Amino acid sequence: MATVKLWTDEEVSADPRVKAVFDDIRAIRESDFVNNFWRALANQPALLERTWLSIKEVMIEPGVLDPLTKELIYIAASTINGCSYCVHSHTAAARAKGLSDKQYAELVAVIGMAAETNALATALQIPIDPEFTVG
Amino acid sequence: MATVKLWTDEEVSADPRVKAVFDDIRAIRESDFVNNFWRALANQPALLERTWLSIKEVMIEPGVLDPLTKELIYIAASTINGCSYCVHSHTAAARAKGLSDKQYAELVAVIGMAAETNALATALQIPIDPEFTVG
Amino acid sequence: MATVKLWTDEEVSADPRVKAVFDDIRAIRESDFVNNFWRALANQPALLERTWLSIKEVMIEPGVLDPLTKELIYIAASTINGCSYCVHSHTAAARAKGLSDKQYAELVAVIGMAAETNALATALQIPIDPEFTVG
Amino acid sequence: MATVKLWTDEEVSADPRVKAVFDDIRAIRESDFVNNFWRALANQPALLERTWLSIKEVMIEPGVLDPLTKELIYIAASTINGCSYCVHSHTAAARAKGLSDKQYAELVAVIGMAAETNALATALQIPIDPEFTVG
Amino acid sequence: MATVKLWTDEEVSADPRVKAVFDDIRAIRESDFVNNFWRALANQPALLERTWLSIKEVMIEPGVLDPLTKELIYIAASTINGCSYCVHSHTAAARAKGLSDKQYAELVAVIGMAAETNALATALQIPIDPEFTVG
Amino acid sequence: MATVKLWTDEEVSADPRVKAVFDDIRAIRESDFVNNFWRALANQPALLERTWLSIKEVMIEPGVLDPLTKELIYIAASTINGCSYCVHSHTAAARAKGLSDKQYAELVAVIGMAAETNALATALQIPIDPEFTVG
Repeated sequence: MATVKLWTDEEVSADPRVKAVFDDIRAIRESDFVNNFWRALANQPALLERTWLSIKEVMIEPGVLDPLTKELIYIAASTINGCSYCVHSHTAAARAKGLSDKQYAELVAVIGMAAETNALATALQIPIDPEFTVG
Repeated sequence: MATVKLWTDEEVSADPRVKAVFDDIRAIRESDFVNNFWRALANQPALLERTWLSIKEVMIEPGVLDPLTKELIYIAASTINGCSYCVHSHTAAARAKGLSDKQYAELVAVIGMAAETNALATALQIPIDPEFTVG
Repeated sequence: MATVKLWTDEEVSADPRVKAVFDDIRAIRESDFVNNFWRALANQPALLERTWLSIKEVMIEPGVLDPLTKELIYIAASTINGCSYCVHSHTAAARAKGLSDKQYAELVAVIGMAAETNALATALQIPIDPEFTVG
Repeated sequence: MATVKLWTDEEVSADPRVKAVFDDIRAIRESDFVNNFWRALANQPALLERTWLSIKEVMIEPGVLDPLTKELIYIAASTINGCSYCVHSHTAAARAKGLSDKQYAELVAVIGMAAETNALATALQIPIDPEFTVG
Repeated sequence: MATVKLWTDEEVSADPRVKAVFDDIRAIRESDFVNNFWRALANQPALLERTWLSIKEVMIEPGVLDPLTKELIYIAASTINGCSYCVHSHTAAARAKGLSDKQYAELVAVIGMAAETNALATALQIPIDPEFTVG
Repeated sequence: MATVKLWTDEEVSADPRVKAVFDDIRAIRESDFVNNFWRALANQPALLERTWLSIKEVMIEPGVLDPLTKELIYIAASTINGCSYCVHSHTAAARAKGLSDKQYAELVAVIGMAAETNALATALQIPIDPEFTVG
């Protein structure tokens, strides 16, 4: 149902540039499974490389937010963007990083609450309090 | 610029139902400042009560996600919803709860990254990997 | 702050094609006031004509939904689209068509509720019940 | 395909807190059918209770907007949010409340028209007329 | 899975008003294939006529943007709106108008980049530079 | 009104990492003007570098889509995302790259048309024609 071909492992192996990224994905994630997102991006090697590099930098390299918190933020953004694929893949990723059912329940409640108050603030066109602005 | 009147403290004081909510907001937040969101909702006492009750339940009562993490999720949702008011108010709230500049920088990077990969997944209409589904 | 010039009445009068639309807007609405939306579209006479024709057909000509109900639907869509201009103009239009404060309060509550349950359904990726499909 | 388990009637019966909500849904709606939305929320009893309470308050209790009008607003919001589940469930709900094919046709035309003019207003960044602001 | 009936060719033939539009679609596109979008709109002849007329005016009649460029714009809008149907149909249309794999790859990269920087600008609530405003 | 400080030229000059990016922006664009987007990103040097590198790769380096076409795609995405800043900055950028008033008028009409048909397809939940899928 994609608008592009999803690359099989055989096709990946035949293209050194794409193979290098897939090898890195497998090494970093310590898993042989590579999901469809990367198999679709394989059609655009430059985008594939750039996106994987960014994902590593933003989501995987150690920072001041822990990896699970980042996945929760990702799920929130993906939900509001209405991206089914992303909701599924990042919910699975969050679970793999230890998301408990209780934490997931709270996440979902916060996303729902945010969506409601966002709509209320937009419907009422509430002006920004000067206390909230910077500088 | 709102589509409704923003209630002043005087008007709030004159309406016992609205006053009760404002008193609770001030008590729980330990601050006299009540932002425009609540001053706009004051026109709809039932919605004011229900929304404040939900916010308390979801955002303030102790759970398994810490209050700062919940604010990050809220900012992510508000950003994708394009709600200026909510981005401003929840970024301020997150800072009040201890968000550092470094953490904020990472949050913004994750939101940006999520928006990009959400758009890529939607543009390419990538089918959901069976590994990501439940049950 | 627009990306295009907003036409003054003098400029409108000098362009017969644009003037014809503005004259019709004023006649149909029985008011001399023409809002910025039309003054911006005046730069694109074909779009101006087509949009006004559609608005007349969809929003003004008698149908089976009353004019106020149509404005409520318009406000809901505009809110979720995050279009400040549209929220303001259609809330004003709804008030001009008799929207009471109580009705407006209910409208806002429904929009907020819808936004929340939309986000919940998307976060949880709930499958469509077969009972809801047609044919 | 959901990110969570959908509760069967057996599972619901075994959990008194969830069962109480499902019993109330069935009683209020005078139907044995409970759709997947509630079966998914059953995983989060607090959210289930709060959401059902809000839905009752906002959508079911008598107000100044009739129940069908509220469903039309819900469909508009759900459409712009791109929530397939919600579009399906609330279109079905609206039909159950008497939505005729002619009314539905007008609803769809208004939503489409709103989406178009929303995009035009945003593309052209039209400034809000002072006539549309309050207070 | 639609919320309305999709008209078969037999049903179309039996309704002169709908048939006239379908005949025009087939003549203009020089193809017998009429996609589901039009088969769904057939339930609302006035909307069917108005939409086809607009599509012809905006997308087909010669202008200063070439037809392929217009499809790229359409795909970008459809992607951000999260409309699966529209992404699929306009990607197919663009390919039929000569979109190469290389061009498609660049289109997808631009859409992704735009989504990321849109989110960054919204998260940071960046004020508009006076240099960007008109008049 | 931003949520972060916008860096002045003095502050930029004092930070070699940020200064290097600003110097490159000025050199590539052959202009001394650097807009607020980059002055806001300056707070996050890693994001600043990564974003500028991507913008150069995607928007500036020669490809198979011409620079103006890419700006039109950017404007379409920014409009639907409701990002005022982005609509303003990319409309200005497109004009600087030669966008004529006639081309702009057509762009706006296409974006509006896309938004309308997107909403219609979503409201009617039209199933994807098998003819539109790949592989």
